[in-house]
Order: sequence, then structure tokens, then C-alpha cells
Amino acid sequence: MNLYLAATFIRDAQYGRNGQFETDENSVKLYNLYTHWLPKVVAYFFILLLLSLAIFEKPAVPGLEIEYYVTMPMEVICLIVIGSRLFHLKLFSPGKTFYSDKKNLVVMATMVVVVIDMISYIALVNSGQAMYAYRWSRPLRPLLLVNIKEGRQIRRAFRNIRRTLPDILNVLVLFFLSIALFALMALKIFERRPELRLYTDNSPYFKHYGDIYFQLYVLVTTANSPDIMMPAFDSNKWFSLFFIVYVVVCLYLFMSIILAVIYKNYRKHLKNEIKKSVFIKRVKLERAFNELKEEVGGKSVVTEKTWYVLMKEVLPNKTQVYYSLLWLVLDKDANGYIDQKMFLQVADLLNVEVSEIRNQKHLIEKYWPHVYNSSVSIAVRQVVMHKFFRYFFDLAIVVNAFFIGFNLDEAEWFFLSVFTCEIILKLYTYGFSEFCRRFWNIFDFIVISAAFIATIIEAALEELQYSRETLDVLLVLRILRLLKLVGSIDRFKIIIGTLTNIAPSMFTYGGVLFVFYYVFAIIGMEVWGTMLSGDVNITFCNNPKLNGSEFARDHYCNNNFSDLLTSFVLLFELMVVNQWHVLTSGFVAVTSAWARLYFVAFHLLVVIVVLNIFLAFILEAFMLESSLSTGKFSNAVEEKIKEMGLWVSKKPLQEQLPVEHVQIEAPQSVLVDNIEVQPGPTQTPADSEAAEAADVVPEMKERRPRADTGLRFRIARRGTRKTEILLQRMFESELLHEEGQEMPATEHEIEEMEPEEIRPTPLTLDNVT
Amino acid sequence: MNLYLAATFIRDAQYGRNGQFETDENSVKLYNLYTHWLPKVVAYFFILLLLSLAIFEKPAVPGLEIEYYVTMPMEVICLIVIGSRLFHLKLFSPGKTFYSDKKNLVVMATMVVVVIDMISYIALVNSGQAMYAYRWSRPLRPLLLVNIKEGRQIRRAFRNIRRTLPDILNVLVLFFLSIALFALMALKIFERRPELRLYTDNSPYFKHYGDIYFQLYVLVTTANSPDIMMPAFDSNKWFSLFFIVYVVVCLYLFMSIILAVIYKNYRKHLKNEIKKSVFIKRVKLERAFNELKEEVGGKSVVTEKTWYVLMKEVLPNKTQVYYSLLWLVLDKDANGYIDQKMFLQVADLLNVEVSEIRNQKHLIEKYWPHVYNSSVSIAVRQVVMHKFFRYFFDLAIVVNAFFIGFNLDEAEWFFLSVFTCEIILKLYTYGFSEFCRRFWNIFDFIVISAAFIATIIEAALEELQYSRETLDVLLVLRILRLLKLVGSIDRFKIIIGTLTNIAPSMFTYGGVLFVFYYVFAIIGMEVWGTMLSGDVNITFCNNPKLNGSEFARDHYCNNNFSDLLTSFVLLFELMVVNQWHVLTSGFVAVTSAWARLYFVAFHLLVVIVVLNIFLAFILEAFMLESSLSTGKFSNAVEEKIKEMGLWVSKKPLQEQLPVEHVQIEAPQSVLVDNIEVQPGPTQTPADSEAAEAADVVPEMKERRPRADTGLRFRIARRGTRKTEILLQRMFESELLHEEGQEMPATEHEIEEMEPEEIRPTPLTLDNVT
Repeated sequence: MNLYLAATFIRDAQYGRNGQFETDENSVKLYNLYTHWLPKVVAYFFILLLLSLAIFEKPAVPGLEIEYYVTMPMEVICLIVIGSRLFHLKLFSPGKTFYSDKKNLVVMATMVVVVIDMISYIALVNSGQAMYAYRWSRPLRPLLLVNIKEGRQIRRAFRNIRRTLPDILNVLVLFFLSIALFALMALKIFERRPELRLYTDNSPYFKHYGDIYFQLYVLVTTANSPDIMMPAFDSNKWFSLFFIVYVVVCLYLFMSIILAVIYKNYRKHLKNEIKKSVFIKRVKLERAFNELKEEVGGKSVVTEKTWYVLMKEVLPNKTQVYYSLLWLVLDKDANGYIDQKMFLQVADLLNVEVSEIRNQKHLIEKYWPHVYNSSVSIAVRQVVMHKFFRYFFDLAIVVNAFFIGFNLDEAEWFFLSVFTCEIILKLYTYGFSEFCRRFWNIFDFIVISAAFIATIIEAALEELQYSRETLDVLLVLRILRLLKLVGSIDRFKIIIGTLTNIAPSMFTYGGVLFVFYYVFAIIGMEVWGTMLSGDVNITFCNNPKLNGSEFARDHYCNNNFSDLLTSFVLLFELMVVNQWHVLTSGFVAVTSAWARLYFVAFHLLVVIVVLNIFLAFILEAFMLESSLSTGKFSNAVEEKIKEMGLWVSKKPLQEQLPVEHVQIEAPQSVLVDNIEVQPGPTQTPADSEAAEAADVVPEMKERRPRADTGLRFRIARRGTRKTEILLQRMFESELLHEEGQEMPATEHEIEEMEPEEIRPTPLTLDNVT
Repeated sequence: MNLYLAATFIRDAQYGRNGQFETDENSVKLYNLYTHWLPKVVAYFFILLLLSLAIFEKPAVPGLEIEYYVTMPMEVICLIVIGSRLFHLKLFSPGKTFYSDKKNLVVMATMVVVVIDMISYIALVNSGQAMYAYRWSRPLRPLLLVNIKEGRQIRRAFRNIRRTLPDILNVLVLFFLSIALFALMALKIFERRPELRLYTDNSPYFKHYGDIYFQLYVLVTTANSPDIMMPAFDSNKWFSLFFIVYVVVCLYLFMSIILAVIYKNYRKHLKNEIKKSVFIKRVKLERAFNELKEEVGGKSVVTEKTWYVLMKEVLPNKTQVYYSLLWLVLDKDANGYIDQKMFLQVADLLNVEVSEIRNQKHLIEKYWPHVYNSSVSIAVRQVVMHKFFRYFFDLAIVVNAFFIGFNLDEAEWFFLSVFTCEIILKLYTYGFSEFCRRFWNIFDFIVISAAFIATIIEAALEELQYSRETLDVLLVLRILRLLKLVGSIDRFKIIIGTLTNIAPSMFTYGGVLFVFYYVFAIIGMEVWGTMLSGDVNITFCNNPKLNGSEFARDHYCNNNFSDLLTSFVLLFELMVVNQWHVLTSGFVAVTSAWARLYFVAFHLLVVIVVLNIFLAFILEAFMLESSLSTGKFSNAVEEKIKEMGLWVSKKPLQEQLPVEHVQIEAPQSVLVDNIEVQPGPTQTPADSEAAEAADVVPEMKERRPRADTGLRFRIARRGTRKTEILLQRMFESELLHEEGQEMPATEHEIEEMEPEEIRPTPLTLDNVT
């Protein structure tokens, strides 16, 4: 029985990790070091540092430029750190798996390419040919972010995009063919009308096939509607029919179909991914079971004794009561052991977020019990807990909003102190840990204290007093305060609850967008980095080719690729789509019409593919929202906790439940209960010390643990925040239905299961539409 | 046994009708007259005539203006027709149902209001107060279209919208609150920067709260991105953060959530609707069963004999073979009768689109068999059936495309005759009925013959020869011809197949949009009808208030409400969203800032609600696409047809199946089979006459009808085109799962089920998000 190895497998299963390692003690230790949070954070830090070098390299953000002989050593350090992490992985990876993993190969190849690029750059610069020296490997940097072992969610998102692409290819081809036909029609109709001119630059109207094609593509993005139609419409109103039919077919029909196809296939691919990771989880648990099993009555089982020892290894920070709680859930028939089938559920059980709540005393109660339990104090606490307390401060926020709106800044100090009072009173009544359980309390605390500090600094330092930037920060803080009102209106809580539930997954898509942005920004900077200037004093963006262009006329000069941050803003504008054709026209004017390819590629990839996949994710999350809040184990655990008499009233969490007009005096009921049951300081300090000392093995035969350990449990109703588990739950019911289906079973097969290895869905007609 | 009544119930169930009528013979006859297609078409014609009066009334389409003393009598005639249809309905409606039906009340109320409006208009005009005379009842006209008994699909779509509205209300309120907070922030930040000016009209930048709110709302529609950001961005690049956060929150997050909430609730409501109509179908069939039932062995059943008599009443145009085919499907255990459970499936069975195909001979074969079966003719037919024949003409289309592209118009006659030859050869080989079975053949036929006729007319009439409009029509016809190529590429067939499947339902949404357009257009015409002029020779749209405005500068003068058609084009542009704020600004300039309400209302209703519901429909249709193609009965019917030896090879329909690289020489295989089996004219004319004379009751005891009646069956694989049945199939699988659930059962309850009567889902928090 290798407890250490089993614990590693269980942690892997719990956190959905997919690492492969030799099972000798040394490798397992190395693996556990590898999965520790510290080296992970270090690796991420250096990857982000590497990516952020683009801020300092030419073309740099103004004022931050660093010469290449400074950035390059930093780049080398980053590469060394990433390389050593890869070496660490190599140390414990079994046999061929390290080299058969495409991720590792991509990372190594990228590092080699970057080194070659650096050497050739130095050589070119030092041989006096600096004008030919490009850092052409920089767009490859995000490959390191995506392909490092930790970038799992983002890699999965990319894999999903890659697999969805063939599915929408047919629709895209048909879409481009339709544009081609319409463009031909437009060419034939309008080439015989030479008198028509475009209003924007008085150029001929629809005379060149390539231009028509581009204009019609822009029309699908709606960016040049209705301007592109107006010259024809002014000459004959029936021409509008052509544009209406075109927009209906190519915009409303095709774009809807593309979203539908993406949604359908995204769902399919995601489900497959999740199926695989559920399978991997099971294999990990099976391996753990094999390490732990004993023979009882001819059956392989895990005994209660092993369980307690195992849990001390897996969850050293939890208490014995928690271990026995889990055991009670697992060992349904109370025979002292569980079989493999039950053991396979351990990971799901561990992922039920149960918080242990010690009957902690308020800090003040602990040190000045006379003060805290005086009649005045109790009166104050009851006032704070009353709903009118909340109503009063909600009203104060509304009044504050009017004061802000009408520039009555004198009252600012008053409101600041009122809201500070609110926080202090709440802290006094509920105690720090209860206070922190509510998101809006923390939000309030941060916003108010930041405003407090900023106001004091502003008042203290003369030179800041009239600085607009400080005032801006203060104003934003003041207005953010109003946001709290939204949090106290019940009907918005569910929307916000769902949003916070899916927020981490949304960050994954943020990461995907960042990668696309980075690659496009670096390429854009290399191509157009120095061609435009945003200086408002220079006419035509400092480029005579833009003389009289719509780009210059619309004051778009600052939308350029002069540094990384500006490029990101420009790409964001392109993502919002509107006026992207004008932005494109500027860069086309200073180079050539081929520049359109860059902008169309960005639009296709980011707007049509990534944003639609993001939309598909939101749709799916909302469709399955009701099943997201609780996992299948939550109820079982809840029942057991109640059975054990260790339940904390759920009322504090009611804010998450869809009940109308619930009064959300969060911890009131808990504390009032306490007051009723224990009207004085009945708990002696010894009691709580006993609770802290409860870290001893409880009587095994006593099925119902002592209820007086001072421990209480609470299940996090709002569900998990971990993307992996969220995704598994999204498809839980469907996966349960298909449980009977065949799954790869041998250990050899799981090594084949490395997600990168799985063949993408073949491009057959069945997969289309 | 009231056969006539039973047949009426069955037809109601088959076509998903929900009419209620007294069961005396007279009422049933009136009801059947009411549901006949002719009075329906007449009613629709007069409603559309009533709606189209807006084209002729002031402000009329130029050249089409008719004085009110001509349009009003027409209006009265329309109202009389609609009223008499309502009276017809009243005649057979049982008791209170006529007056308890809100539809009828709305139609009657609308008619009364219209009459009052007409009288007051005439009175005002004739008393010399024409300036106060408005036809204010005109926006109510679409109520007649929606609420007439026939407008069922469109009414259901409206009901769905109405019920989805409360669900998205919370999200919308939160959305508008978010804009309010961001607007306050923008006000505070930018009011201290008076030097910033908007680039468009040099007006102060973000200084007035109402304007900021509107500008930020426009930013959510992306229409003023990035222009609204540029002044701030030029002054300090970090201001872009404000706009980026705003766009991410209010555009990407909220708009996705709105779509998700709409999708989720749309699906829920639609499912409820379909559940109800399935229930109504069952009640109708139960009533029919009760009329037809006989007692056999203590069970209420319908006998085979009754079935044949019934079918002659329900489907007088079908043959006895078809009746017995259906009976074979229903009477699984071949005991000569079916029970109620089986009888309840009759409507679904009748909706399986089985086409009877007589072994029709080619017209030429019939009259000149020697010619048609000569070796030359057979050779020609074999050439036409060969795949290279298709390849050749596909190639000809591509070549034609290049000729069109490069203006080689001389070849036009050549191509026209080539494609005419193709059609003649195909007609000769496949015969007219086979030829017409393929959509692309019909398309080809129409396009080519239209081009042929137009070309001849153009060549014949001197004055048309150089008319651009004729040439435009010809060009469009020529280019449409290229579209056929898309139809012959297999990978696009599925997409096009799905589209044609859902096309009728899409027209329902077209109807919904038409109603919204009509109401907004009439209101717009009353308010701004005469304020702008699109005449390009008049500066500033003939309105000095537009002097120097962006509206006039962008040449938008023709986007006005001067007549119904122009208004529709303007509203379409508003629906496409881009530049809608500029269009709005023009109408705000000539009236007041309150005009924004009209445009924001249009955007909210049409773009955010209706278009998202349309998108939800497309998403749902594509998600369920695989289950759409066949109903649950298709297979049973297919089996029986094969058993009876009456099956027509399915190959001609392969175009609908997702098989890769199928060669779609549609009827080839059928005919080749025929040629192989019957190498000469084996079928004598007497045979086909016998087939036509097969309209006699077949031997009841012979379970397998004669296979030599010359009749063959074919099941329409592509499924039905009827919206009602399509929708039922969409939720068929889910409805089957829930079959066990309680349904209202008594007859009284079904009268309560009149969809309008069903309470809308209450606005509880459960329904939100």
C-alpha cells in the first residue's frame, strides 16, 4: 500500500490533472513538486514577463523603450526558467511520453526558434545591417503560454476552436460564394452607370470586382451600411432591393447559421473533451484504489482505517470530523469499508465545497466579553441586523448618487464617514469571517477604504490637490460605491450569481483573445509600426499618403500600431467591428490593398469564430444554469451533515436562492439562534480549545460524531468556481445517461488519451451543418 | 356514426386546426366552408389590400396618390369582407366561445375604431379643418392581420415574444442601470475637461447626462465606435480603458446574456405551445373516435370497413391502395379493427407525406412509342443520364460566369441556347413529373425561360433595346443561372436542405417584422412624413434645421418617411443598426430629442427582441436538425410500402441525405431499373388504364394489395414544410418523454385551452435569467 502515491492520484483526480509520471517514490515526489502552486506561479510569471517584453522592445510604449541588449538577457532568463520547468517535467515523465507529447515539442521548438532569432538579430545589428533586423519570432511567444503544461483550459479552448473550424468551413465557403455572386451582380448592374460616385471619396461606384467584393464583405459586418447603398438609392429607389436581399441572405441568414453550426459543434466537441477528462479521473481513482485495496470477504475494498490515514495525506488541513463526514457519505451501508464503485466517486465528493466553520467567537467577545455582551452592544447588534439598517444605507447610496450627479462635492466627507460607519458596525456585529462571506461586503470594504485613503492623500499632499488624475480615481471610486445597490436588489442577484459562476471560464476566453491580440499586434507593429503618427499637431497622421483620406478625416491617427498597448486598443476597435473598414482603409493607403487580408483575417478569426464560440459558451452555461448550482453529491453531503447535527443554518446563503423578497440580513438568523439558545456567554474558553484540540481520531464505532466539537459545516451553494468542474457538471446529466458506453480501458489506452493525441473529428459531411 | 363530423375532426387534427363549432350538421358544413382555402384567401387578400392602402394614402408613394374619397370606400369594402368572415365564424361557434375569444373582440374593436376614425376624418376635412385631420387608426390595421383566425403562426410568434419579454425584463433593467452608472462616471470624468470636443460636430464632449446616456446606448449597438472614444483617446490614451470596460460589460456580456435568456425562454414557451397543440390534436381525434366507434368484443374500436368509408370522406382524392396502406400501418396485429390508442395516431400518419406515383409513361412514349424507344432515343437518354452530362453543363455555367465577368455579351445567345437544350433534353429523358421533382430543375427552367422571353422581347421592341432596366433584369437572370452550380455541389446541399426545411417558419418571422415595420412606418409617416425631402437638388434635405448636420453631410436625405416604401427601407437600415444614430440625429434635429424614443423603441423591439428570437429559432432548428427530417411514422409507413411491393427506389431523393460524393443523377437509377426489368414496352396501355380504374374497394381479406395497380409510393424524405408539424417534430422526442404527465382532460377544459386564454407565465424570480 503506497499511501503517498495513492494520495497523489486522488489529488490528480480531484483537481482534474492529467499528469503522467513514473511510480517510483522519487518521481512521485518530483511530480508533486511540479504540481505545487509555487513553481507554477514562477513559470507563469516568467512567461508573462516574456510576453510583456513587447512593451519595451521597439516599437515600445513611449517612455518605456529599453535597448535590445537589456531585453534580450531578460528574454534568455525567461527561456531558461521555462526550459528548466520542461526539464523538471522530463525527470519524472515515463519513457516516451515526454517526447510523444506535442506540447513539449512545440515549446522546445519555439525556444530553439527564438534563440536563432536572437542570435541572427544580434549578428545583423552588429554587422551594421540594422534595417534588415526584425525580431520575427515574437509572434510565436504565445505558443509558450498555450503549450505549457499548465495552460490546460486555454489549450482546450484552442483545440475546440480548431475542431469547430472544419465544421463551419462549408458554411463559410458557401457564404463567400454568395458574396461572389452578389458582387458579380453589382458589377454588372453598376458598371453601366458611370455617373454614380461614392459619397465618401467621390471615387467610382462599384466598378472593380475586388473592391465590390470587399465592400460587400464589409456590408455583412454592417460597418458601411447604409452609406454604400445611398448613391444607388438616390439614383433609383428600387436599387435598395439588391442591398436588402443581400443583407437578408448574407447577414441575417448566413451569420445566424454560422452561430448555429458553431453552437452545435462546440457543444459536441466540449462534451467529448469532458467525457475524456471524466474518464481520466476514473483511471486515476482506479489506480489509487489499487494502491489502497485490501481483501475483505473476498472483495477488494478500502477500509475505514485506510480512509483516515489517506485523508491525512490528501487533506492535511482538514479535521477528523470532516474525514468522518466524508466517510459517512461514502459508506452508505455502514459496514466499515467501501468497494471500487464507491471509491470512484471520491473525487466528486472531495469537490463538494464544504466549509468548516468553527463556532468562532467575535474577537471583541473573546477579549472584552463584558463589553460585547452588554445590553447596549446587544441593542446595537440588533439594530444592525434589522432590515431597516440595510434600507437606510441603500437610501443613503441613492442620495449619494444625486449628490454626485449634481456636483455637491461638499457632502463627500459626510457620505464617506457614513459608509465607513456602516462597515465598522457590520464588522462589529457579524465578525470578520462572517462579514467576508458576502461578496458585496468585501467590495464595499475595498471601495470605501480605497476612497478613504485616496481622499486623505489628496488632502494631505498639496501637489495632488488639483491633479485631475487623482480626482478621476476618486470619482470612479465614488461611483463604484453605487454599484452596491445592484447587489442588494434581489432580482439582479441571480443574474450576477450566474455571471460570477461562469466568470472563470470567461477568463479562459479572455486568454484566447489575448493570444490572438498578441500575435496580430506584433505582426501589425512590425508592418505598420512607424508609418503613422498619432500626434494631433501633425496633419494626415504624419503620412502624406493619408492626405484627404477618410481615416485622417475621422481623426483616427491615434489608432495605429505604434506600440503594444495602442495596438491592443486598435484591435479592440476592430473587434467591435464598427468603422473597421475605415481603419483598414488607412493602413491600406500607406501600404497596399493586400493589407485588407490582415484585417479580414482578424475579423474572421476573432469576430466570427472566437466571439461566436464565446457566445456559444454563454448560451450553454445559461441553458444548463439550473443544474450548475449543485453537484450530485451536494445533497448527500448536506444530508449527512444534518444527520450529524453539524449543520449551519443555510439562511446566510439564501442570497443565492431564487426566492422573492427574501430578507438578506445574512448572518442574523445564525446569531439570533445562538442568542436564543445560549443567552449568555455559555461557551467557556475551554470549549473552544477542546474544539481546536479535536484533531484526534474519534471513536471509530460511534457513527455519529460528537456534536460539541464546535465545528459546523456549510455547503457552498453557489457551486464551484473551477472551470474544469463547472464544465463536467454542465454535461453531467448527459454523461450519466451514456455511462454504459464503452470507454478505453487499459492503461496503455489512457496514455494514448493525451488530448493532443486524439485525432480531430474527420471532415465528413455528417459533421457539417 | 356521423361520418361527416368525424372527417371534419380528423382534418382539423391533421392540419392542426383549433376551431370550435356546434356539432349539428349545418354548423359543421359552415365550419368546413370556413376552413376552405377560397374564403381564407379572399379574407387575406382584403386584409392585405387594407394594409396596402397606406401606399396610396397621403403621404403616398410618388405617382400613386389617391384621394381619401377613393381609398375610404375601398377601406370600407375591406372591413365589410373581414366583418362578414367574422359573422361566418359567429354562425357556427358554440355559445359563448365567440365572445370569450379575445381575437374576435380585438378584430371587432379595431373595426369600430377604424370606422370612428374615418367618420371623424371626413367630418374634419369637410368642415375645413383639414390640418387637424389625421388617420390615427392606421397603425392599428396590422391587428386585423394578427388577430384573424388564420394568422395562427404569426399570432403564436407574437405570443412567444410577449411571454419572453417579462423574462428578459430583469436583464434589461440591469443593463439600463449599468449604462446609467457608466454615464454618471463619464459625466464626472469629462465635465472637468471642457477643452474636449466631439469631432463630428465640434459640440462639447460628454457634458450633458441625457446625451451621454444616449451616446453610451448607441455605443452598445457599436454604431458610434470608435468615434465616440477618439477625442478622449487623443487627449489621454488611458481613457480607452473606460470605453473598453464599458463595451465588454454592456455589449459582450449583457447582449450575450440577453440572447441566452431569450433562447432559454423562447424554447420553454414554444415547447408549451406545442404541447398544447398536440393536446388539442388528441382531443379532436378522440371526438372523431367517439363518432366512429363500434363495440367489438367489449372494446370500442374502429373497424376496417369504417376506415375505408371514412377515408373516402377525408381524402377523396387518394386511391383505395393508399387507404389500405394506411390501414396496414395502423392495424399492426391485422385483426380488422384498431383501438382508440392507435386511432389517436391517425393525424400523424396522415401527415407522412406519401406521394402516389403512377407508373406514368412519358408523354412521347405514350403517343409515339416507336420514336421514344428507338435505339437513337435510348442512346440520347443514356447520354443525358450519364454523370458527364451534368459535369459538362456545370462547366458551361463556370465558363458562362467568366463570359459575364468579362463582358463578352456576344456569347449570350450561345449560352442561352445551350442551357435551353439542357432543359429540353432533361424533359425528354425524365418526363415532366420527374423533372419537376427537383428544385434546381424548376429553378433552372424558370430562370432560363424568363431570360429567353426577356431577350426576345428586348430584341423585338426597339424602344426597350437600350433601356437599362431591361438589361438589369436580364443580367440578374443571367447571374442567377450561376446559382445552379451551388445546387450541384454536394456539400452545400445539406445546408440548403436545412434552410428550405425551416424556410416557411422563417416567413412567420418575416410576418412579425412586417407588422412591426408597418406600425412604425405609419407612425413615422404621420410625424415626419413631410419634413424632409430626398431631392438631391435641394440642399439640406429641404429643411434648414439640417444645415451642417451629419445627416445631411452623409447624404441621408433620401432616408425619410415620405412614403410607405421609403419608410420600410429606412426601418430596414435602422434594423441593420449601423449609422442609426446619425439617422436618428436627423429626425431629432427637425423635431426634438424626444424623437430618440421612437428610434430606441424600434431598436429594442426589433433588433434586441425580434431578431434575437429569430436567432433563437435558427439555433433551435439547427440543434434539432437531425431529428427534423423524418417523423416517427415515416419508417413504419416505409416498411409497409415495401411489404406491399409498392416502393419506388429512394435514390432520386438521395440529394437530401448526408452521403459523401453521391452521384445525383436523380431519376437515373429508377429508369435504368425499369429498362433492365422491362427492356421493351412491356406495359400495355390497358395496364395503366387498369391502374386508373383501381378506384374500387380491394379484396378486404387480401392483406397484400395487388402490386400491379401501376401505383407506387414515395415518402418525402425532406420532411414536411408545414410550420406546425415542423415545430411539433422539433419537440417530439421531449414530448414523448413527458407523455405521462397530466393534461387537461375534459371537454370543458379544452375550451379553456384557447391559447389566448392561457395565463402568461407569472413574473417570478424562477423565470428570470
